[in-house]
Amino acid sequence: MTLQIGFLLFPRVQQLDLTGPYEVFASLPDARVHLVARSVDPVTTATGLVLTPTMSFADCPALDVLCVPGGAGVNGLLRDAETLGFVRRQAAGSRYVTSVCTGALVLGAAGLLRGKRATTHWNAHDLLAGFGAVPVHGRVVRDGNLLTGSGVTAGIDFALALAAELAGREAAEAIQLNLEYAPAPPFQAGTPDTAPPHVVEQVRTRSAAIRAEREQLVAEIAAASPPEPASHP
Amino acid sequence: MTLQIGFLLFPRVQQLDLTGPYEVFASLPDARVHLVARSVDPVTTATGLVLTPTMSFADCPALDVLCVPGGAGVNGLLRDAETLGFVRRQAAGSRYVTSVCTGALVLGAAGLLRGKRATTHWNAHDLLAGFGAVPVHGRVVRDGNLLTGSGVTAGIDFALALAAELAGREAAEAIQLNLEYAPAPPFQAGTPDTAPPHVVEQVRTRSAAIRAEREQLVAEIAAASPPEPASHP
Repeated sequence: MTLQIGFLLFPRVQQLDLTGPYEVFASLPDARVHLVARSVDPVTTATGLVLTPTMSFADCPALDVLCVPGGAGVNGLLRDAETLGFVRRQAAGSRYVTSVCTGALVLGAAGLLRGKRATTHWNAHDLLAGFGAVPVHGRVVRDGNLLTGSGVTAGIDFALALAAELAGREAAEAIQLNLEYAPAPPFQAGTPDTAPPHVVEQVRTRSAAIRAEREQLVAEIAAASPPEPASHP
Repeated sequence: MTLQIGFLLFPRVQQLDLTGPYEVFASLPDARVHLVARSVDPVTTATGLVLTPTMSFADCPALDVLCVPGGAGVNGLLRDAETLGFVRRQAAGSRYVTSVCTGALVLGAAGLLRGKRATTHWNAHDLLAGFGAVPVHGRVVRDGNLLTGSGVTAGIDFALALAAELAGREAAEAIQLNLEYAPAPPFQAGTPDTAPPHVVEQVRTRSAAIRAEREQLVAEIAAASPPEPASHP
């Protein structure tokens, strides 16, 4: 049975959140990978690359894997009923519900993280609690059929881990070898713990506006849907 | 002065060869990143993702950085006078001539690797000698203003190294942190030395047809342009 794997595509997505795992999933022996958006009009990503959706929400088949990437454009989705409705409908029937980077916030806004262990980009990690999630630090975090990756490039690690579940470890290893994925970063600045403090400060400052808007949105969502009262004594 | 950075875009490019370094370069403080193709018609990549060129060869400004990604579609470029002419013209004036993965074969076919240390995807590495290059094993290999990366995901490491040269180490570290590039592959199968032997065999078998066609093309190019005779005794 051909696996149906769908990425949510939206304006100002961080394209590498999507294109990293795309390359892994599209290399699986028997998979179709869809880029699903409100309409099939081309979409401009956060860094300017133009991606073309393969189908609209309405035309999307039931997915085996739903994957929500992140990016600056996530803010515009957190209260978007059409997008959240699509995510909820697909998540209800899919084998795996997944996100990369701040795509986790969209899952949260759709109510899919309540009581679940999850991760996201380091600069949004504390916001997960606002959705009732249990924030966990990890490159890839699993809770049942929910898989969340940390920031951007974690999407490649996440996708290889999921590829092994979908098609077996050897299939995942063959993909890794074909992508020559033996990373050798020239610097050790990939996390706030290893980057020089002034570099961390610089990145925080540059993303302060997007982060402030996100805090406000998450607070509003949290206020509108307080934790459910315990259903048993 | 705004940096002009151009990726060659062509049918059946391995999209992650391009989208990895794209995300790094497009995050530089003052850079414009172009996807340059024969025409501006959308291009289907090796794994099906559709990318849209930003300009044609004719409209491309003088580039500071020329980057040629690889992929199955490289075979169609090795004797394509229009593409090789564009690559030669841009390379003559650019600060950096670069490739990711089998993009190096295009540089070779354009005559830009003669006597130069270079690398490429592990499954094409021995072919570099046919272009008069000095094949070197390394994630990123430098010879003067020539930077070549090994397979696919090496493009991220290459781009961070070049970003540091273009804009300083701190700028590169800020990009690495923003992309949370602290890779943690779930398996150790990224090179033929570390992957299980039967996985290596499987990948070789699957790519045998493309590889055989490449061998033939490189042999023909080598025969048509024999090494220059020594110009001094």
